Amino acid sequence: MTGPLNPPPRLLMGPGPITVDPRVLQAMSAQLVGQFDPWMTATMTEVMDLYRHVFATANEQTLLVDGTSRAGIEAALVSLIEPGDRVLVPVFGRFGHLLVEIAERCGAEVHTIEVPWGEVFAPEAVEAALVAVRPRIVALVQGDTSTTMCQPLEEIGAICRAHDALLYVDATASIGGNPLLTDAWGLDVVTAGLQKCLGGPSGSAPITIGPRAVAAIGARKHVEAGIRAEGDQDAGVRIASNYLDLAQIMDYWGPRRLNHHTEATSMLYAARECARLLVEEGLEAAIARHELHGRAMLHGVQGLGLEVFGDVAHKMSNVVAVRIPDTLGASGGDAVREALLTDFGIEIGTSFGPLHGMVWRIGTMGYNARRDAVMTTLAALEQVLRAAGVPVSAGGGVGAATEVYQ
Amino acid sequence: MTGPLNPPPRLLMGPGPITVDPRVLQAMSAQLVGQFDPWMTATMTEVMDLYRHVFATANEQTLLVDGTSRAGIEAALVSLIEPGDRVLVPVFGRFGHLLVEIAERCGAEVHTIEVPWGEVFAPEAVEAALVAVRPRIVALVQGDTSTTMCQPLEEIGAICRAHDALLYVDATASIGGNPLLTDAWGLDVVTAGLQKCLGGPSGSAPITIGPRAVAAIGARKHVEAGIRAEGDQDAGVRIASNYLDLAQIMDYWGPRRLNHHTEATSMLYAARECARLLVEEGLEAAIARHELHGRAMLHGVQGLGLEVFGDVAHKMSNVVAVRIPDTLGASGGDAVREALLTDFGIEIGTSFGPLHGMVWRIGTMGYNARRDAVMTTLAALEQVLRAAGVPVSAGGGVGAATEVYQ
Repeated sequence: MTGPLNPPPRLLMGPGPITVDPRVLQAMSAQLVGQFDPWMTATMTEVMDLYRHVFATANEQTLLVDGTSRAGIEAALVSLIEPGDRVLVPVFGRFGHLLVEIAERCGAEVHTIEVPWGEVFAPEAVEAALVAVRPRIVALVQGDTSTTMCQPLEEIGAICRAHDALLYVDATASIGGNPLLTDAWGLDVVTAGLQKCLGGPSGSAPITIGPRAVAAIGARKHVEAGIRAEGDQDAGVRIASNYLDLAQIMDYWGPRRLNHHTEATSMLYAARECARLLVEEGLEAAIARHELHGRAMLHGVQGLGLEVFGDVAHKMSNVVAVRIPDTLGASGGDAVREALLTDFGIEIGTSFGPLHGMVWRIGTMGYNARRDAVMTTLAALEQVLRAAGVPVSAGGGVGAATEVYQ
Repeated sequence: MTGPLNPPPRLLMGPGPITVDPRVLQAMSAQLVGQFDPWMTATMTEVMDLYRHVFATANEQTLLVDGTSRAGIEAALVSLIEPGDRVLVPVFGRFGHLLVEIAERCGAEVHTIEVPWGEVFAPEAVEAALVAVRPRIVALVQGDTSTTMCQPLEEIGAICRAHDALLYVDATASIGGNPLLTDAWGLDVVTAGLQKCLGGPSGSAPITIGPRAVAAIGARKHVEAGIRAEGDQDAGVRIASNYLDLAQIMDYWGPRRLNHHTEATSMLYAARECARLLVEEGLEAAIARHELHGRAMLHGVQGLGLEVFGDVAHKMSNVVAVRIPDTLGASGGDAVREALLTDFGIEIGTSFGPLHGMVWRIGTMGYNARRDAVMTTLAALEQVLRAAGVPVSAGGGVGAATEVYQ
């Protein structure tokens, strides 16, 4: 007989998911209330308002998609893209490739521009591609954990508007730890997840949908048979997914409260607490906290004598890619991660694609953007590297972090 | 500032979601472990094995889709259906219409047969439609909460095989409370949810996929760019969804552990505990419990002098549709539900489509398939009906239920 759940203690210092804030775990253990209970309706309205703060937006259509952050991405793309649409994806890491992949499955004619992993795009490069491709939609990752880079977005919204394109942004890895101003930057749709800087578990995808995107998606609304009312007219090209159909999901969250999926209430509780934690702390304070602890980790690994990968000036505050020392050999990087996990209960991340075997990724995000988490990780890493024969300066990591904190 | 989460106490006696078993809430409050941690991998393997018991199957491909039960339905259909495929949907309630809706969005040529709400299909009727339509796929609901009916499936699997069709079954509302034998009945794909007889919250969709369906889905595998390895060949017509692509999700749960979504670990913990509760109790004992308490509720509402809707011989054990007495008038049904909620903290369900305003739906499922839940609901219903002017026999509901229990 399978025993009771008893996960081992872990300090999750990878690129996410990370250790969940205990307040979020507590919220998830609250009992359910019925889906159309007045309290539930009021709570959903509260959640919408909380996430308007998180996304820095006044968008009425700010809600949760019931699934992981990837469900939010696909909901945005499948609801925006009509088969044959031209979509431009500037790719600077793995999650750019994911946007390409999803857009293709939605039937888009996808065009890409690329920079080497570890770099970001200049706004001019994006504009030149817009001129050349004339896309209906631009899909862009803000923070790509595969490379740790954070794409500057301040100017991209205006550029897309000037060229009459809708701008979708995947902010899963960056939101809450790096500035993201949906309205000020003119982002049409932004999606997120809980499992990075928001300090929650994966499984709920907050999304905000601006007026231009609401109009485009609403023009494709087909209310499903069985709950359709008189006056519901089918319009436009039907959205290819039912589960991720934002036109119906907006009706479900809106005043009509039209039945769609059965709300994943425990995940809604988690999402609510994540946003409450962020609003309580203050968005700017949370971003400053991620910047501080991210900088301490960055200086710490450099203080150990390790090299950092990529354009550090454009790195997300909440994750750093550390070059695996050559002396470790082909499988040495994994052996270090394994020793950290086994001997210290600390998880750091491996990497994908062109960076596989070349870098570790160390996160300082959400609940783990904390001094003790940074210091403990650096102390443990020093011990493990020394044991593996890597020359490290004794106390160099913790010392460099301490200097940042002083 | 939005305050801490503090849901009001509710006894959820509707058609689901229902009150979550406290052990499941407790499991969800466990801390996360990394996605590729050896403990996590072992836990995912455990969950697969637990759900083989739940589905009564030896299918290797028995896993969770990260989303509500509707995500599981769409994952099954979008992964099986190629555009232009003929799909047969026997419709006997709202969730049959949902299968039609989703199959259409997948590009299927959908054919339906229908019986009036409150009835089920004779196997001969399904076979005649198979002969006429020659579908590649048959999609069928087992238990449709909209009508409370439970479609007999014992013979349908063999009929589909004889006519070379794949059989998909949505068992969300029925599993754990009514017999479901995936292998013995020859069901190719079955999906479920936690929020009914399994006593959990919505947000995770268990699924089992038999060898014929695995072959059909595997023949369409396209591993996404960014994690594709040498030797990964694209095959067949690409599945239209990435998030709900079972070919990739099987690789993610399988020995290859190929990265796909970020596991919704808290929901996996919930799903694990739901299955553990069921296996501990024993599947047959759980079904017998639902039968007992469902019968007590059925006799109870009849003992109050109320009429039951539909073909009672084919009703699911875990939900009953009760005709709203004519004396209550047009909005009287909702007033009764509201009084139950306000004065007693008990939720019962409204209804959809042709039954809207005509019946209430009362569930006895999962954690709430309990004697005290049945007795309390009947006692409260008696009081509320009497106050609303409906002639009810004093003690008639509780008395009839007591007789069932004796």
